[in-house]
Formats: sequence, C-alpha cells, structure tokens
Amino acid sequence: MLIATLLTDFGMVNTFVAQMKGVMLSFNPEINIVDITHSIEPYNIRHGAIALGMSYKYFPVGTTHIAVVDPGVGSSRRGIVVAAGGNIFVGPDNGIFSVIYAENKATVYHITDKRCYRNPTGATFHGRDVFAPTAGLISKGMPPDEVGPAISDFNSFEITPPSKIDGNKIMGEVLYIDRFGNIITNITAAFITGCGFKLQGRLIALKESYAAGINGHLHAIINSDGYLELFVKQGSAMAMAADDKAVRAGDKITIELSG
Amino acid sequence: MLIATLLTDFGMVNTFVAQMKGVMLSFNPEINIVDITHSIEPYNIRHGAIALGMSYKYFPVGTTHIAVVDPGVGSSRRGIVVAAGGNIFVGPDNGIFSVIYAENKATVYHITDKRCYRNPTGATFHGRDVFAPTAGLISKGMPPDEVGPAISDFNSFEITPPSKIDGNKIMGEVLYIDRFGNIITNITAAFITGCGFKLQGRLIALKESYAAGINGHLHAIINSDGYLELFVKQGSAMAMAADDKAVRAGDKITIELSG
Amino acid sequence: MLIATLLTDFGMVNTFVAQMKGVMLSFNPEINIVDITHSIEPYNIRHGAIALGMSYKYFPVGTTHIAVVDPGVGSSRRGIVVAAGGNIFVGPDNGIFSVIYAENKATVYHITDKRCYRNPTGATFHGRDVFAPTAGLISKGMPPDEVGPAISDFNSFEITPPSKIDGNKIMGEVLYIDRFGNIITNITAAFITGCGFKLQGRLIALKESYAAGINGHLHAIINSDGYLELFVKQGSAMAMAADDKAVRAGDKITIELSG
Repeated sequence: MLIATLLTDFGMVNTFVAQMKGVMLSFNPEINIVDITHSIEPYNIRHGAIALGMSYKYFPVGTTHIAVVDPGVGSSRRGIVVAAGGNIFVGPDNGIFSVIYAENKATVYHITDKRCYRNPTGATFHGRDVFAPTAGLISKGMPPDEVGPAISDFNSFEITPPSKIDGNKIMGEVLYIDRFGNIITNITAAFITGCGFKLQGRLIALKESYAAGINGHLHAIINSDGYLELFVKQGSAMAMAADDKAVRAGDKITIELSG
Repeated sequence: MLIATLLTDFGMVNTFVAQMKGVMLSFNPEINIVDITHSIEPYNIRHGAIALGMSYKYFPVGTTHIAVVDPGVGSSRRGIVVAAGGNIFVGPDNGIFSVIYAENKATVYHITDKRCYRNPTGATFHGRDVFAPTAGLISKGMPPDEVGPAISDFNSFEITPPSKIDGNKIMGEVLYIDRFGNIITNITAAFITGCGFKLQGRLIALKESYAAGINGHLHAIINSDGYLELFVKQGSAMAMAADDKAVRAGDKITIELSG
Repeated sequence: MLIATLLTDFGMVNTFVAQMKGVMLSFNPEINIVDITHSIEPYNIRHGAIALGMSYKYFPVGTTHIAVVDPGVGSSRRGIVVAAGGNIFVGPDNGIFSVIYAENKATVYHITDKRCYRNPTGATFHGRDVFAPTAGLISKGMPPDEVGPAISDFNSFEITPPSKIDGNKIMGEVLYIDRFGNIITNITAAFITGCGFKLQGRLIALKESYAAGINGHLHAIINSDGYLELFVKQGSAMAMAADDKAVRAGDKITIELSG
C-alpha cells in the first residue's frame, strides 16, 4: 500500500483537504494518506518548507509527499514533481521544497502532461486539480519523468544558517512558533558545540536572549528535533509578547550564552 | 478496501469521532476512513449539508459518507441511509443530505433493523450506536434496503439559489465562513455570466457589497469551488465585522457589480 | 491490517504526530493508524487517561493504542507496554493508563530492549524514538514480553469515584471540558439511580450546582457516554465563567438534585 503525505495551510474547517484526498483515492483507492499538518501559517512558504523538512525523513523511502502552501492564488505558478532520495514530492514551484533540495540530490520536473490535469480546460485549485491527480498517477507507477520536462531553474530559498557573532552570541532565525507558544529556532545542538560551547543535558543557560517584543524571562532547551527552543516556564513565550505577531517565522534572533 | 468518509460538528478535542471510527472498524477492519471535516459550525445543518455537497463528488463512486450534525440531542430523529449516484450516505433525517437529494436521484431508507443498533435497548449517541454500525454492515455487503423501509417523507431544505435583483445587483446567501475569515457565497461564476456580466480572470470588480456589519473594503473572487467569495486583502473579512457573528451561514448577501 | 491508535497532547500544528506515524509506517507499512485526539490539554495526564478510557473499548480487540501525554520533558520516565484485555498499550509510565488498569487485568513491561530504540545512543523524543518503534515491532508479531521485564511498581492514580454527600447532593469530579464549553463530570447515570434518584429521560433537574466561578444557570444532562454533563442552553458553560480556567479537569464539583 503506497504511503502519501499531505502538508498544507488549508486547515481542516473547509473541505479542501478532503477534496484532495477524494481525488487521490479516485486515481488509486489503495493509497494510505497521512496528514503531516494542515496548520501551516497561511501563505508562509518558509514555515511549510521547514515543517516538511522536519517530517519527510521519518517516513519510509518511497513515500510520496504532497505540499501545498502558496500565496500565489490564481497565479501561473508551475506545478512540479521532485524525485529526491528515493521519495517523490509534488507541489508548487515556490520554494516549498527548499529543504529537500538542500538535503538531497534532486531532479525536478515541470508538470505539463495532460493526464495530470483533472480538468483539461484549466485548473482552478491546483491541489485538487493537478497535484492530487499527479500523486495518484505516480502511485500507480507513472514514472516521474513522464509528468513533463526536467527543469533546472526551479525556485529555492536559503534558510540562513546560524552564525557565531561574537564571544558568546549566536544568531539564528525563527523556524516557527509551536502550539504551546514556544519559539523554535534553527540553531542546533551540533552548531552550539561546534562553536566551542559545552552542553550539559538539554537545558541551555542563557545570559540574555533578544526576541523582539518578548517581556519576561526566556529559557532555552534543545528540543527533540535537535533545535534550540525558547520558552517560558509553564507558559507561552508568545503570550508574553507585546502582540502575538511580535515574533514570526524567518525573524532573526540572537541569544547570548552565559558562559 | 472500502472508503468511508466522516463529516461532523464534534471537533477533534473530545473522543466522539474516535468512538465512531472504532465501531466502524469493529464491524469491518478493512475500511479506509477519511475525515472530511469535524469543524462544522456546531448544530449548523446547513453548513454541514453544503460541506458534504462540496466534497462527496470528488470521492470514488461507491464511497460511504457518514454525516452527523444534529441539534436534536436526545430527540427521536430518524436515522436514514440514502442510496444516490452509486454512493451511500448515512446520518440523521434532518436535511443534512439536502444537496445530495438536489443533485441525484435518491432512495431513502429509515434505519430500523436491529442489526444496525449496537445496543438493542436504545442508542444514546446515534453516530456511534447506529450510524457507525450501519456503515460497517453496508461496507460488508448488506444491501441498503435491508436497513429498513424506504420512505418518501424525508426532510430536505432548499439553499436559495442566487437571483439578479436589478441592473447590477445579485443576491445570494452565505454558504460558510472559512478559516481565513473569508465569506463564501452560493453565487457561482456560471450564474454571474448567465446574468450577462463578463468575467475577466477570477477577480470581480464590485461597486458595493452589503454584508451586514462588515467595515472595510470587501473584494470578490471566484474561488476554486467556483463560488463568489468576499475577502479583504491580506486579512480576514470577519475580523472587520462589528462582531464575529455578524455574518453567518444562511444569511442573505447582496453584491453590486461595478459594470 | 493491524489497527493502531494515537492519543497525544501535541496538537496538529507541529509535526510530532506525523513523525511518529512515519516511524510506525517505517517499521510496518501496513498499520492502519487512527487518531483518537491530539488535543489533550497540554501535560494533563488525567485528561489523557480519561479520554483513552472513553475510547479504547470501541476499537476491535487486538488494537495497539499509543498514548503520549507527559509533563516530564527530558525526564527519565520509563516507557512501558501494557497487555490488557487482548489489547496492547504503549506509552510513558506516568499514570496515563490508569483507567486501563482499573478496567482490566493488565501485565506491564518496561521497554528496555534495544530493538525498540530508534537511536541506540538515547531517545530525545520518546513518542517517535521509543513508542513508535515499539508499536511497529509489536504490530509485526514481537511478543510484548520481549520488550523488557515485567514490572509491578507502575504508576497509577485513582479518579475519585462520585459520592453522595447528603440528602440530595452528589460530589464528583470534572473529567474534562469539551469543545462547546460543556463540563463533563465522572457522575454516571448508574450512580445517580443507585443513590435512589429517578431519572426521566436524559435531562436532570438541578436545584443548584456548585461550579466555581460559573455565573449563570447550569443545566445537567446524561450525555452519550453516560456521564452527567453541565451546560448552559445554546451556549458555553465555560464562557460564563469568570475566567476560562475557572473549572479544570480533576476539580471537585457538587450538584444538588431538585428532588
């Protein structure tokens, strides 16, 4: 039974995700569809790229991952299929697969074949009308190179790697804010020790952290994904912010270790 | 593997949906259960009927759809099975299948057979105790006409079709409010062009829109379901309402096109 | 196809649940994974224990249930496998399986076998790195007693049973607050009738209810799980509380029946 995952910013209140699943199952009723999340911050491609990057590696090789986060409503954004690391990725060519490109040797195809379009006169909802059929066809054995021509000018963006900016300061960026209001950064345990700091357990002693708009004492921990996470004890870091948009995915953040 | 969908207003915080799934899998462990949504506005049958109507047609013919939205707690609402368009629908007889009746030739059966009741002394939670077992039995080959007698006095309501009310004005009704605060109406692109207006792309120039309590400039677009949707740029239309119940599913709404 | 359920307090915004599912499917691609809920109140083991207790009995015998609610981040909490009533339960040894112990003869094993650990040098996220692999291995036929030694000092807590405290008063405790703001207690219909009160239908006439901080008239009903539930008509009981933490799972609550 082929495994396919879905990651979107559609939420589960409307029926967009269900429409996509229905179309996938219409092409291949034997797909086992797993939701990664549908709660990507709306239109936040960076958040989507990171969430996909954190998840795909835990699935069996051979999984098809569909990711749809796209502010370009009604735009002429290309649909693409990415073959990388033995897995298949299907979605818009807007950078959503940036982590996949960074971590794998990837071949990218522009979806042009008519079989991949539900409605030959034009797709209105690409998730349902192009990506779902394409994933369905690939799950039944269509080789990726039949969806359209290979392209090399696909879109990708960098997630700025963390850097040591002086004695005890490390600058990184906010990956995302989790459900508990914790701030997850792209600063890894490996980077911190590589800078010469010693880690004892998962808690990190901070001298100061500079998260714009947060009032209150932030603590830091290496979370279960290996990333430095800022939190307040028994509460939400974000709830202590001046407003709940004070810190966002992609923001630069600087921490100062205590020693 | 038989596909069954679930649509409810139960949310996913409590365990009602899981209880239903457990019972379905107890009757037939090979059902592939897909969530349509469990975020129907509580007790809003109209919202449920529309969400089901937007989704079922994307699933393979032969799917069993279970829909449970019902303000009649503890009532003597009949449970029904609807055979329509090659699919099976299971739920309460309260109008939740109105769109199904409007779009298909349907035969409706009142669920009375004892095999369909988990607890012979009476069901307390119809979703778990009647609809889930019924769907499980049908998935294993029980013909719909064995659940009970065919009935013709089933409940259905009309979703008022849009109408042109003078030169440039179209009146429709609010289908639902989506996660982003956008207002989705039942005015379709086909209706607008049928009124003699030309559409260029998906954006629609509005002279004015009359959505009670909304402060701010509304824009209109034909969304991916083909419905006219009202939104504000980079924001939530509903957030601009005087209060967040200012516009609700079923409300009449009038737009005036600019030309 | 083996059925496995997941119950956590992780929410569906981050990708923790997806990571667990990916690992489970990597060990056994044929598992049918069903979400019970991921909206347990964060760190509320009591809420998790009750939600699991309300759900597991509706699934087929032979189901594997994984439950992860644990405030002990980074702690040395033991991972356990519980064989009870023909089902398997996997999770932390923190009392999350209290209802399972109370309702079944259970054998509990401490997970120590190296095969159950994804990363031999230590697990950081037990759900993904220990519980998911363990569930995957068991689903492929590993006997529970191979995960590690049987233990008898596992953690369990009591959910205080309801009691009659004088003529017409019954004291119980709050199980959880549902999505609609209703307050679900552990007072059952069976207990009420056992106290000598007569029930006519599901509505219960209250003389008074003592829910700290609730302003407004509470009504009581026997809900579909058989528990007494406090609600306000067409609204949220919790919305009438002085603050939305006025009533919490585990709080004592006293009702006075009208006669």
